[in-house]
Amino acid sequence: MITSTQDRGKQRLYIQEVSVRDGFQMEPIFIPTDRKVEFINGLSRTGVAKIEVTSFTSPKAIPALADAEAVMCRIERAPGVEYAALVPNLRGCERALSCGVDEINLVMSASESHNMANLRMTPMQSLDQFAQIVKLVDGQARLNASLSTTFGCPFDGDIPLPHVLDTVARFVDIGVDGITLCDTTGMANPAQVARVCEAVKERWPAMAFTAHFHNTRGMGLANALAAVQSGIDRFDASLGGLGGCPFAPGASGNVCTEDMVHMFNAMGYDTGVDLDALLALAGELPQIVQHDIPGQVVKAGPSTRRYPVPAGKVA
Amino acid sequence: MITSTQDRGKQRLYIQEVSVRDGFQMEPIFIPTDRKVEFINGLSRTGVAKIEVTSFTSPKAIPALADAEAVMCRIERAPGVEYAALVPNLRGCERALSCGVDEINLVMSASESHNMANLRMTPMQSLDQFAQIVKLVDGQARLNASLSTTFGCPFDGDIPLPHVLDTVARFVDIGVDGITLCDTTGMANPAQVARVCEAVKERWPAMAFTAHFHNTRGMGLANALAAVQSGIDRFDASLGGLGGCPFAPGASGNVCTEDMVHMFNAMGYDTGVDLDALLALAGELPQIVQHDIPGQVVKAGPSTRRYPVPAGKVA
Repeated sequence: MITSTQDRGKQRLYIQEVSVRDGFQMEPIFIPTDRKVEFINGLSRTGVAKIEVTSFTSPKAIPALADAEAVMCRIERAPGVEYAALVPNLRGCERALSCGVDEINLVMSASESHNMANLRMTPMQSLDQFAQIVKLVDGQARLNASLSTTFGCPFDGDIPLPHVLDTVARFVDIGVDGITLCDTTGMANPAQVARVCEAVKERWPAMAFTAHFHNTRGMGLANALAAVQSGIDRFDASLGGLGGCPFAPGASGNVCTEDMVHMFNAMGYDTGVDLDALLALAGELPQIVQHDIPGQVVKAGPSTRRYPVPAGKVA
Repeated sequence: MITSTQDRGKQRLYIQEVSVRDGFQMEPIFIPTDRKVEFINGLSRTGVAKIEVTSFTSPKAIPALADAEAVMCRIERAPGVEYAALVPNLRGCERALSCGVDEINLVMSASESHNMANLRMTPMQSLDQFAQIVKLVDGQARLNASLSTTFGCPFDGDIPLPHVLDTVARFVDIGVDGITLCDTTGMANPAQVARVCEAVKERWPAMAFTAHFHNTRGMGLANALAAVQSGIDRFDASLGGLGGCPFAPGASGNVCTEDMVHMFNAMGYDTGVDLDALLALAGELPQIVQHDIPGQVVKAGPSTRRYPVPAGKVA
């Protein structure tokens, strides 16, 4: 049951922007560093709580983000916004720390096959590396652990809930500050999201959990609704819905930031985000990435938009 | 809170297909009658509960549906499927009855401006006409009343809940068998859907309410989730997401049938619909309407699809 938001104070939700990392890394063109910096500076002015700025990965693996240091060091940091970076290994961690990131985002998969394919390690090796990185960071930055394929793996299929809980428990033991549950290829459904999110919130009520959904099968906002109903208040999203899915050409990518903010704002939540500023920035994206974007509100306008009564018949 | 569906019998949901009316009427090309009949016969084999076959409106107003009689009379009717038609006035009602439709769908808007623009009548005049049509039909067909702009009007804005309830009460008094709450231009949000649906279900628990959502602003499935949580079990949807919005060129149309069925099936509901059959039929749509369709699952495949582990790195 959805609780009406009219008779209580607005609940705060935290919107975390991932387009410049999760989105840009999929783009076939290299977006010039200046353009990235300008775009991220624009994002900083929209009211998002966090920006995942880049990934300190091998430039050979992801050429689109080869300018990680330059981008991280040249952006203007706005007060109240956290600037995070994805870090795949110890070397990446050193690079990220040298740029003074606010948060380091570690990643591993809930499924063995996806972890091997993505990171060339077993999940156990990933956990060992996480522990080493926590030691290396030693309080110089916040630490977040992202669990890919939490809601299903395109190779291995279903991920049993006890396995998700066991892995989350390992993250907690290692001492991370936040945990992201990722629906990496858009396999989650709202009933499953409710089961998983309720289970982790019940066991670790004080942990900062983030939900990271993809709209691959059109369920992104429905899953976000199920997550917020289950007590999740942090959401990754990607401006314009940038992101895509490596296994489904033409499929939608990450859940779209402006569509998510539009929904949550309309529902009466306090996202802290200026939708108009977000829409203005989303409008620049087709020129930046040189293709159309899947976001809907940028095309249709917000639901508060009014039209003059037409002279002719409407359908 | 979402109730887990694992520990109870599957709840039945009824999927009502509107692509051949709400979708085809927006298409700039005339789809040949034979192709419509073939397509509707295909829909009849997917397990949908109802098909809104056509609209008995003026061929001048909607040339795309000028073949209403031919289509309605030539389709093969499958047992267990209801065949409905939209009827804008008494003349249309006579035409529909002459074809032996199972259900007549009446339509009016919750907002004055939209009713005037769409039907050239005041809402009061529409209600009077509904009453005349109920008399004319006199049990020869089921009667459904659709309330356009229930969740907001592109001209008038918000529709107060008491006004929605008053109009629904008039429908009930007139003696209709079912009532559809239409989010005509995709303005609804899930909190509002919950408020409206809970209110009507509480006041008229035995009435067959249908939720009719558009995905104009990406919230179609989130709204469907909110509606099912609020006790709604009948959903209009359009194969491929066909439909569109006359006020927002490029915006998505009706909520997509195969994406909705995919979500509800994955959640453990019993839609009665064969998703594979639906996807096969959706795959024919781009050729029929001669453009791409917004449906996601037809591009990405169902979430149960498995992929071989790739040789290279995955994102």
